[in-house]
Amino acid sequence: MTDFNIVLFDGFETLDAFGPAEIAGRMPEVWNLGYYSLTGGMVTSSQKIEVNTRPIKEMRSDCILLIPGGMGTRQLVLDSIFIKEIAKACDQAAFVLTVCTGSALLAKTGLLSGRRATSNKRAFEWVKSVNGEVKWVDQARWVVDGRFYTSSGVSAGMDMVLGFISDLHGADVARGVADSIEYIWNADKDCDPFALKV
Amino acid sequence: MTDFNIVLFDGFETLDAFGPAEIAGRMPEVWNLGYYSLTGGMVTSSQKIEVNTRPIKEMRSDCILLIPGGMGTRQLVLDSIFIKEIAKACDQAAFVLTVCTGSALLAKTGLLSGRRATSNKRAFEWVKSVNGEVKWVDQARWVVDGRFYTSSGVSAGMDMVLGFISDLHGADVARGVADSIEYIWNADKDCDPFALKV
Repeated sequence: MTDFNIVLFDGFETLDAFGPAEIAGRMPEVWNLGYYSLTGGMVTSSQKIEVNTRPIKEMRSDCILLIPGGMGTRQLVLDSIFIKEIAKACDQAAFVLTVCTGSALLAKTGLLSGRRATSNKRAFEWVKSVNGEVKWVDQARWVVDGRFYTSSGVSAGMDMVLGFISDLHGADVARGVADSIEYIWNADKDCDPFALKV
Repeated sequence: MTDFNIVLFDGFETLDAFGPAEIAGRMPEVWNLGYYSLTGGMVTSSQKIEVNTRPIKEMRSDCILLIPGGMGTRQLVLDSIFIKEIAKACDQAAFVLTVCTGSALLAKTGLLSGRRATSNKRAFEWVKSVNGEVKWVDQARWVVDGRFYTSSGVSAGMDMVLGFISDLHGADVARGVADSIEYIWNADKDCDPFALKV
């Protein structure tokens, strides 16, 4: 069993975190879901959902780590303690997946420098400003570079996690998960219908 | 402002509840989101998310009420106290929306009897067995009958809530919300790509 850990913080975007949680939860034979925050305890999403979490320090290494976006990221990129802890967790993780402006948090750690990555196109200028050394891809549903998966806005996180399942366990398994939640999967990571609408 | 209340219980399906929460939260000028359970306090989703809730008795009338599905519904249809409280809340709500096997809970209250409704096709035989007097629709992404909206499985709840926004505020508003979360909306409630896959 591998830990599939989701990092939460005040002002996280609900679907960024819990769309992937729904999908990862459909792989109970391989992944063990956990919810973490900097100090543990209750955190509140932008949609006012109050969620209990464990402290990041308790995470085990070699996990899969997912970082959502949301308005909370605007302050957090300036929070050196948070970024240091996230950097450590990302460093020890087997894979790091970010959704939407979660890419900005990962970019701030420096771990994306020189790598290809994407984010929400509506917040793209701000995300790019966080780290200009990342090879930002301006049209992609999600981008894979080594052990880093970064997705476009909100719903794109679900497509990415299905793509991650496909990469690790095969397209049939991913398709089975999508069907089980009656989800119409955009399976082409290069198909970004929202890139040109901004 | 209208309250948009989501009823949670142990074993609720995460995306059934929090996909709609994401979407409803994009209408902050008209809807005030709240999370409730029978007695209030912490409840845990099937994907192990621990969420804080308020007691159903504190709900104000004339709200929009959303009931998710999930494995927890299997026990709850047999829980007369829960069904009685849900029936009272549904009775006082302006609109009732159910996702997936949440339709079984609503059907159990008797309020759907004689009305058209749908649910997850993978659990359809069980849901139908809960109340044979409902006009169950076996191919629909979601169904509208009066103030009752019922959707198919998990992800269909997001399409339904966008359809609900479209009915109340116009298709352009719904499309704007879908775009803002980069969601590829299945806007046709009669298009059910998963009905025939079972």
